[in-house]
Amino acid sequence: MEITHIEHLGIAVKSLEDSIPYYENILGMKCYNIEEVADQKVKTAFFKVGQTKIELLEPTSPDSTIAKFIENRGEGIHHIAFAVPDTNAALHELEEKEVRLIDKAARPGAENLMIGFAHPKATGGVLTEFCCPKGE
Amino acid sequence: MEITHIEHLGIAVKSLEDSIPYYENILGMKCYNIEEVADQKVKTAFFKVGQTKIELLEPTSPDSTIAKFIENRGEGIHHIAFAVPDTNAALHELEEKEVRLIDKAARPGAENLMIGFAHPKATGGVLTEFCCPKGE
Repeated sequence: MEITHIEHLGIAVKSLEDSIPYYENILGMKCYNIEEVADQKVKTAFFKVGQTKIELLEPTSPDSTIAKFIENRGEGIHHIAFAVPDTNAALHELEEKEVRLIDKAARPGAENLMIGFAHPKATGGVLTEFCCPKGE
Repeated sequence: MEITHIEHLGIAVKSLEDSIPYYENILGMKCYNIEEVADQKVKTAFFKVGQTKIELLEPTSPDSTIAKFIENRGEGIHHIAFAVPDTNAALHELEEKEVRLIDKAARPGAENLMIGFAHPKATGGVLTEFCCPKGE
């Protein structure tokens, strides 16, 4: 598999409003995009640090997977997303190597990406996303 | 604060030997360094992906903080490390902004870095390291 860089890190937070000031005022980053992803029941806020984005994820419903994550483990790092040239090709390669997947085909995510997740049971407990820009 | 990039992501694993094949054979990364950090009671394995390293952390003793993390939460992402020009200056700035710290002064870490941690209670549940190369 060809992974070029870490595209983003997803961090589960209870509230974007309460969390953004830490990233802006303490760490000196700038929130450049806030976006709701309706089918994932989250509101997201993005920051850039070098090649990688920090994606804060606030649940918009109690049955969001992010709400459940926070309920079980508290706020914290939720997933890592690797940039690949083609998400579907990456998922196909994982399937051929018998890596258990959450998504068998790429689906649209925030920031105009096509995304797909492997199952954390297959990746040493690290919820892992593979993503590429839409249309590439 | 000036953060240039994510220097590494620390991932807690039970066994380097069992975990390295996933990173090498499935993700196509190459382990370029294995190093024991005696005072943190861990053995580490490093991979590079773009600007960022993946640091696998295997506990070498049951009273290692990594052993306790795995006992409580299972294997998974343990911490994020931001590259700063000067770790002590970063810790000092955090202290002035009343951010709770684990380390008030930089100490030596793996890969010839000077490192210091903020407390996850002050960083939205994200255990956060700040680091710079030794001697800078």
